Amino acid sequence: MKVFDIPGFPNPLRVRIALAEKGLASKVEFITIDLPAAEHKQPAFLAINPLGTVPVLQLDDGTNISECTAITEYLDNQDGNPVLTGKTPKEKAIIHMMQRRAESELENPIGFYFHHATPGLGAGLQPYKSPEWEGRVEWGNRQREKAVAGMRYFDDVLRSQPYVAGDAFSMADITVYAGLVFAGFAAIAIPEECTALVAWQAKVQERPSVKNPA
Amino acid sequence: MKVFDIPGFPNPLRVRIALAEKGLASKVEFITIDLPAAEHKQPAFLAINPLGTVPVLQLDDGTNISECTAITEYLDNQDGNPVLTGKTPKEKAIIHMMQRRAESELENPIGFYFHHATPGLGAGLQPYKSPEWEGRVEWGNRQREKAVAGMRYFDDVLRSQPYVAGDAFSMADITVYAGLVFAGFAAIAIPEECTALVAWQAKVQERPSVKNPA
Ligand SMILES: N[C@@H](CCC(=O)N[C@@H](CS)C(=O)NCC(=O)O)C(=O)O
Ligand SMILES: N[C@@H](CCC(=O)N[C@@H](CS)C(=O)NCC(=O)O)C(=O)O
Repeated sequence: MKVFDIPGFPNPLRVRIALAEKGLASKVEFITIDLPAAEHKQPAFLAINPLGTVPVLQLDDGTNISECTAITEYLDNQDGNPVLTGKTPKEKAIIHMMQRRAESELENPIGFYFHHATPGLGAGLQPYKSPEWEGRVEWGNRQREKAVAGMRYFDDVLRSQPYVAGDAFSMADITVYAGLVFAGFAAIAIPEECTALVAWQAKVQERPSVKNPA
Repeated sequence: MKVFDIPGFPNPLRVRIALAEKGLASKVEFITIDLPAAEHKQPAFLAINPLGTVPVLQLDDGTNISECTAITEYLDNQDGNPVLTGKTPKEKAIIHMMQRRAESELENPIGFYFHHATPGLGAGLQPYKSPEWEGRVEWGNRQREKAVAGMRYFDDVLRSQPYVAGDAFSMADITVYAGLVFAGFAAIAIPEECTALVAWQAKVQERPSVKNPA
């Protein structure tokens, strides 16, 4: 298998943690895509992922899988022992619900803020992301507020359960964790009151897969 | 099981089609939430779904599942015969990839357009959706363009395969179909050139589950 990504970025990190959790890191060849140079918006990469984002998992038969949720489903089901995406219908449902919330309440608004109200990934990418339009900074700043509200939401969840989707670590934890990494990039601080979120973050940081992602 | 929703809305429709596909309609009691009156933004409903959206599936043990992807996973896995979310790791991955794309390229931008550049669901909901900010209409209109680009993308996909995720009907078809229903609400027309998309829509409309959703 091949993974097209760029080390250190939040969505690539999601897949790299999943690979480490599943012990599959050695099965993958990584190919770096130069995001700041907009390589992912050129025809060669758009043929692999028409949405122009990383990561992409390329199977040995040439099938390209984009979207971290989809890639994680694939990796987690390889050995018939899905530990990140749930075993029972109810586990699967709760994990997918929290996964979607982690994207809509944390990752997406941080991305909107980063690309609209800050210089984002720099001048090379700006034409693809945030053309000058009236109100773009105001829009970005509103999304920053939404991301902070998202942190408060996950803090609240983590006051009554050890992991984002319940008693066990899952892909939803990976997504919230990567969301906080992205928040760090974008200089959005976790509110001081969010002590459960910060304690959970410290606990997740101790996992071997998070200390040493693929 | 209970489903909190409002008939005729695009996300509720996704779950109602899935229920009909799985033959589970009679197992569900529906509870209508008055969206135009902002019932979904009041404390009683926020206790069921803190994100304040419908649909929500409530299991008999009281667990609340929001997010159509999560609800569909639950329903589809009930009988151990997942026909909407894939059986093999590769099928699951492709379906989840296309599902996510249907949300990010179609449903989400249509929603942004609808709530920012049109009167949306009316005055009662406006305070929760789109406070007056400079550039909101411009933002909304850009999202309209994104949704139309999304239609062209799915048209392209459907030129070389019969369904959104390949050879078989799946939850990704339901999501694209509901996205086009939402586009209809928002008066975003399918571009004339998108003949594969329109032919697929006509074919999907003939399914019993789509003719008679739960
Ligand atoms: N929903 C996608 C998000 C992927 C994504 O946005 N990746 C970022 C890198 S962290 C990217 O490719 N950004 C480049 C861009 O948006 O121009 C997923 O789950 O993989
Ligand atoms: N991502 C959610 C979207 C749900 C959603 O936005 N539902 C709409 C109805 S079609 C809603 O509740 N809108 C009310 C609002 O946004 O105020 C899902 O998959 O269920």
